[in-house]
Amino acid sequence: MRIEYVKQEDQLSLKRSGLLGTSEQIETVHQIINEVKLEGDRALFRFTETFDGVQLNQLLVSEEERLNAYNAVDEEVLIAIKQAIHQIRKYHELQKITSWFQAETNGTIVGQQVTPLDSVGIYVPGGKAAYPTSVLMNVIPAQVAGVKHISITSPPNKEGYIPPGVLVAANELGIEKIYKTGGAQAIAALAYGTETIEPVDKITGPGNQFVALAKQAVFGDVAIDMIAGPSEICVLADQTANPSYVAADLLSQAEHDEQASAILVTNSNELAEAVKTEVDRQLVNLPKQDIANAAIQSFGVIYVTPTIEVAIHAVNQLAPEHLEIMTNEPMELLGKIKHAGAIFIGPYSSEPVGDYFAGPSHVLPTNGTARFSSPLSVDDFVKKSSVIAYSKEALKENGKSITALARLEGLEAHARAIDIRLEDLK
Amino acid sequence: MRIEYVKQEDQLSLKRSGLLGTSEQIETVHQIINEVKLEGDRALFRFTETFDGVQLNQLLVSEEERLNAYNAVDEEVLIAIKQAIHQIRKYHELQKITSWFQAETNGTIVGQQVTPLDSVGIYVPGGKAAYPTSVLMNVIPAQVAGVKHISITSPPNKEGYIPPGVLVAANELGIEKIYKTGGAQAIAALAYGTETIEPVDKITGPGNQFVALAKQAVFGDVAIDMIAGPSEICVLADQTANPSYVAADLLSQAEHDEQASAILVTNSNELAEAVKTEVDRQLVNLPKQDIANAAIQSFGVIYVTPTIEVAIHAVNQLAPEHLEIMTNEPMELLGKIKHAGAIFIGPYSSEPVGDYFAGPSHVLPTNGTARFSSPLSVDDFVKKSSVIAYSKEALKENGKSITALARLEGLEAHARAIDIRLEDLK
Repeated sequence: MRIEYVKQEDQLSLKRSGLLGTSEQIETVHQIINEVKLEGDRALFRFTETFDGVQLNQLLVSEEERLNAYNAVDEEVLIAIKQAIHQIRKYHELQKITSWFQAETNGTIVGQQVTPLDSVGIYVPGGKAAYPTSVLMNVIPAQVAGVKHISITSPPNKEGYIPPGVLVAANELGIEKIYKTGGAQAIAALAYGTETIEPVDKITGPGNQFVALAKQAVFGDVAIDMIAGPSEICVLADQTANPSYVAADLLSQAEHDEQASAILVTNSNELAEAVKTEVDRQLVNLPKQDIANAAIQSFGVIYVTPTIEVAIHAVNQLAPEHLEIMTNEPMELLGKIKHAGAIFIGPYSSEPVGDYFAGPSHVLPTNGTARFSSPLSVDDFVKKSSVIAYSKEALKENGKSITALARLEGLEAHARAIDIRLEDLK
Repeated sequence: MRIEYVKQEDQLSLKRSGLLGTSEQIETVHQIINEVKLEGDRALFRFTETFDGVQLNQLLVSEEERLNAYNAVDEEVLIAIKQAIHQIRKYHELQKITSWFQAETNGTIVGQQVTPLDSVGIYVPGGKAAYPTSVLMNVIPAQVAGVKHISITSPPNKEGYIPPGVLVAANELGIEKIYKTGGAQAIAALAYGTETIEPVDKITGPGNQFVALAKQAVFGDVAIDMIAGPSEICVLADQTANPSYVAADLLSQAEHDEQASAILVTNSNELAEAVKTEVDRQLVNLPKQDIANAAIQSFGVIYVTPTIEVAIHAVNQLAPEHLEIMTNEPMELLGKIKHAGAIFIGPYSSEPVGDYFAGPSHVLPTNGTARFSSPLSVDDFVKKSSVIAYSKEALKENGKSITALARLEGLEAHARAIDIRLEDLK
């Protein structure tokens, strides 16, 4: 792992893998979307055969498949899923916002009404791996928000099945509709509907390049969560940190993806050297050694700063997806962190604790977008309406100012809508 | 105005003007963005000459220009601006959310930290009209959120000036940087920076087709608010409504734009006929008669329903930007409204009250996107970070479940980051 020395005034130019697809990929995605719009289910069956290598009879997961899934999941895993559901739900309940209003003495009421989205579609990636916790982290915030219609779509394997962990997770959450289709075609189906798949108001969940491009393409017709980039971890640590913990946590993100980034920012040269050694040591016997190594080589870096303040400044420049703080008094630094998706405090807040169990969603802003984006939350599944109940008295009081502003903007019909009422109130 | 009779089961197929630009427009916008990226200020001066017809010496509005603006604004208007600022700020203060945390008995703390965005750029449209209230409705939520760096950009007129109302509004809010540049080039400058214009984290504010396309193009590199479509009003009324109020309010939106839509949904045939007559009567002597008439012809419709319930059902299908409720007991219908940007209740809540004065932002979701989007608010100018401070005890308690989930997903390095700590805790 490369070590770099940075000063207060340095602008860190973090190497990041871009998100843009090639123009060929974009063209392909648009074609897929159009065919799904035109042909519906037929197009889905065809693309599933082409891309997933399996001929399906139906897109909807059957009751039998759901029940069989339980046989393929260990008791220990089932317990873990149930516990995780409990923790995630408990956290998200705290995020719920309520409608509010304020009544003025002149009789006017202003407020904000909060209502859930009607319907949401969750994309769960498939391929070689299974991501049951993706189901939990997307579905639970939507359920807590009060969304009534939640469906899941995920690509089937070559035998035509969805991994049992995903089915069990979905079943434990009471999801009624799980569709076997993936890629850009699944996003198109959720956005525009087919014979089998009902269209939704919002699509969330991570996916590969084609899924991301398809989400970008349907954005506006439906809402999307965010375009997720490769995973990132940044550890902010001083000489009190345990180098083997730091190294293990850096590797936990590096194993995700060759594009993942793993960064240590520290004011301790000693820690920097120790972590570098530990990363090499722990790397050798990892099952995903090749991926983790590639990520560390390309996007891994240890920044050594003269002081902890400079280190914090660097972290705010990076605006990382995951930030771990392993310093002597980590809580005292919290107020100085301006930009981060999730902040993990102290030696026992290893990043996987947040990925699976602690409660907050693991769907987080990547690629520096923590500067302006937030973790997926209950807020993403509600919307607000402003409420204005203006009183007669308030209109008499303020009517003249309202018409003055309307006429300043050259909008006479606006002014007259007020004048016509003021006439009656004379 | 056209009258249509609808039944419970009818799917209203509202004619809406699309948002997509032509491929030529998209190409032009991309070229403009690239030139601004490459050439900075030079490109801005050049495009301002081409598109706004004026050769500028500098992009930043001078102190002198600000002060002169006050001479061009009536006392009455200045008072109205100050009052509006007060009202809008008062409302948005109610939207502020705070950081929170929850401490568990096992020593774990989870929470959510709320921080403002660092910097925001507000686009204020120019051209033939001036929109001082656009300044208020975008800047105030950002200020209440705590954003430190707020700049404004607006196209200059042929004499090289920004309209005085816009300057006075910006000055009253203490905005330090007002740039004279508009169109796609202004959006590019805010997104990527030039010698004069500092790049920002988020761009908000309405604009023409080119501004909208440019916002779409820079989305991801910076945040944007929304792509605003033409204005819409929907009035939900029964036989107790005053037809001249309804007609005046419909026309107040119709005068905005030939693409604006003005819709009445009512269970009263009598009201439908009366409003139709009133619209024709009030239309004749409007300064923007041509625009309003075109909008009414193309996008104006009166839906007559058998019952008020069917009318509400229709409103929820439309998910209008502005909804006025003028019925006998309008407050009682509020809980049945699922989708609307802003809801105006009762005969005195004319839509222009909300455009200028009542408090909520007039930046609202259009084109049916109220199904999944919200009015511009303080929330748009903050972001959240999840906070997890996991305790030793909690890790001992749940470590096994966390590793079980990590291994279920085939992420061994995730599991080992937990195991390495559990070993130490044995």
